Order: sequence, then C-alpha cells, then structure tokens
Amino acid sequence: MVRRSGRRPGNQDTKQSILEAARAVFAERGFDKASIRAIAGAAGVDPALVHHYFGTKEKLFLASMNSPVDPAEVIPQALAGPREEAGVRLVRVVLSVWDSPAGAAAVALMRSAMSNEWTARLMREFVVTQVLRRAVAELGIDEKEAPTRAALVATQIAGLAVVRYVLKVEPVASAEPDRLVAAVGPSVQRYLTGDLPDVF
Amino acid sequence: MVRRSGRRPGNQDTKQSILEAARAVFAERGFDKASIRAIAGAAGVDPALVHHYFGTKEKLFLASMNSPVDPAEVIPQALAGPREEAGVRLVRVVLSVWDSPAGAAAVALMRSAMSNEWTARLMREFVVTQVLRRAVAELGIDEKEAPTRAALVATQIAGLAVVRYVLKVEPVASAEPDRLVAAVGPSVQRYLTGDLPDVF
Repeated sequence: MVRRSGRRPGNQDTKQSILEAARAVFAERGFDKASIRAIAGAAGVDPALVHHYFGTKEKLFLASMNSPVDPAEVIPQALAGPREEAGVRLVRVVLSVWDSPAGAAAVALMRSAMSNEWTARLMREFVVTQVLRRAVAELGIDEKEAPTRAALVATQIAGLAVVRYVLKVEPVASAEPDRLVAAVGPSVQRYLTGDLPDVF
Repeated sequence: MVRRSGRRPGNQDTKQSILEAARAVFAERGFDKASIRAIAGAAGVDPALVHHYFGTKEKLFLASMNSPVDPAEVIPQALAGPREEAGVRLVRVVLSVWDSPAGAAAVALMRSAMSNEWTARLMREFVVTQVLRRAVAELGIDEKEAPTRAALVATQIAGLAVVRYVLKVEPVASAEPDRLVAAVGPSVQRYLTGDLPDVF
C-alpha cells in the first residue's frame, strides 16, 4: 500500500487474465506441453508480457496454482543429506509447509482438486512435474522406476495431508510433527529407495 | 418396479427425513453419542419407525452415508487369515470395493468430504467407528496403540484412494490391483502390527 508502481490500473486485470489462461492451458495440455506462447495467445497478450510478469514457465505455473512455496527451493533442501533418511526429511518438510500459515492455501487447493476435475488435473501436474520429478532427480532414482516410486510417495503424502488437515482424524490431526515424521517417514523411504516387489 | 409394497406414498419422504436427520445428528454428536431417539426426534417421527426402516444404528449410519458396502461384513472377511498378511489383505479389499461399480459412490463421498466440513465429519466418523475400529478389534491390537495405528492406516489408504481415483496420478491410476497390493500392503502392515517408533 505504501509503494505504488507506476503501472497502469489495467495491469492487475492483465495479470489475472494471464493466470486464468495459464490454468486452462496447463490443465488441458499438461505442464510439459503448455507453452508461454500458447498461454499468451489464450490471454490475448504478447508472450514478452507473460515473461515480464511471471518469469519462467515454472514460476507462472506456481503463480497459477497459488503455491505457497517453490518446490525448486524446498525439495533440494529437504532431500540434501543421507539418501537413507530422505523419506523422513521429505515428510518433515511437507508437515512444516502444511503446519505453517501457508498450509491454509494448500488445504484449499487440495479441497478444490477433489471436487473439480480441472483443478485435479492442475494438482496432478503440480505434484508430478514440480514435486515428484524434482525429488526423484535429486535422489538419482532409476528412470524406469521413478514414476512408480514417485506416485507411491504421493499416496502416502497425500493421505497424510488428507487425514491430518482435511478429515482431521485423531491422533494424527493433533500429533507433534516429529512423531508423524518418525511413523510415516520409513514408508516414504521404502517407496523412494527400498526394494519394491514390482515396478509398474 | 414389479413388487409394490402396500406402503403409503409418503414413506419415501419419511425415510428421506430420517436420513437427513441422521446425517445432521451423526455429524454433530459423532457416531457413539448419536442415538436413534435423538435422530427420530430431529426427524419428527417415532423411534420405532426408525428401527422399522433402518434396523440398527450401524445400518442407519451406513444408509445415511450411502455406503456401498457394509464394513461389518467386509472387514472381518478382509482380515481373516494370517496376522502378518493383514495389510496386504486390507489393501486388496479396499481396491476391490473402489474398483467395483460401487466405487463411484465412494469417490463421490470422498470428494464431498473434502469440500464440506459437515461431510468430512461424517466421513471421519465412518472411517474411525466402522472401518478402523473393526479392523483393530479383529486383529486384537493393543487398545492403547489402536487409535494411532488406525489413523496411520487411514493415511495410507486414503492417500491411495485419492491418488488412484481422484487425482489419477499414473502409474498408480491404471496399475493392476495386485501390483498396488504388493507395493502398498507392507506399509499398511507396518502401521497395523509393526514396530512403530512412538505411539501418540
């Protein structure tokens, strides 16, 4: 409120149009096939303006999802350290984001993804391309096994979020993060690096 | 359509009123503290009529949740057999219900529970009192540990359902049930009967 940019009042509308176009194009084509040019086209603006406002395609995607954190920063930080403790650290960082004030946005996003096919697609793209893909790359997981391992990790992490923050089943809802990390971390570790009976 | 009961047309409305009252009372008081009498009172009918239409409180609860299966039948069946394979069998029965035509109702219920606090309470009551409580009783799990173990099982099962049926993250979304059972079963087994670092 104190600092005013010199931009014209129309800019907020333009940014909003770009974000709406981005959500539509990311949901329809998926993150990999969506281009800044296609999004700019859908919003009726020049691609340079999209770059100017949002930077990279990743940054635009995060903005369009109202992501409370940038996985490009959080994931490497979470996974730095011994490979055999990656599961524990991943659960810890997830809980620290969701337990923080930013968690409310994450809960809202999750709720919306459950009831709306379009948001579900965005959420899936977000989870797969921004979170899981980074995590498996960081851990150097075999490329053939990566999709299975990543999706299995997603089952445990998504379920933890649903039970703790949405359904609020006790004692998980009120448990100290450290206790949940100790209980759930090994399951995530097994999906990341353990012997799985099968890859599919 | 062939067999007609001799009941008056108003009966469907009465049943509907009872189901609505049941949802409200179960959500507000929880399953254990809700009584048939309170539900009948909220619906403005005689308690005997509630028993007549729906039988026990459990049956009324299942009807009010549109539950596609009766956990009282499914859970003992799922858990009969060696204790050390209970996790695998529990995941198998969950997938068989959700993969069946009844699964659509389960997905709808889950979606609704995510976006509506009131349905979330019903869902939590359903999961805790009808599914998890039966499962831990069936396995003879220590009473002190049961709530923690049950809620941890819920994180893995709910997450599997969300990732496979709602977010549809591949390859979990299209995987053969047997492969998912083999991958996820051991995590559930650990929550049910394994050494956990902590009980909370």
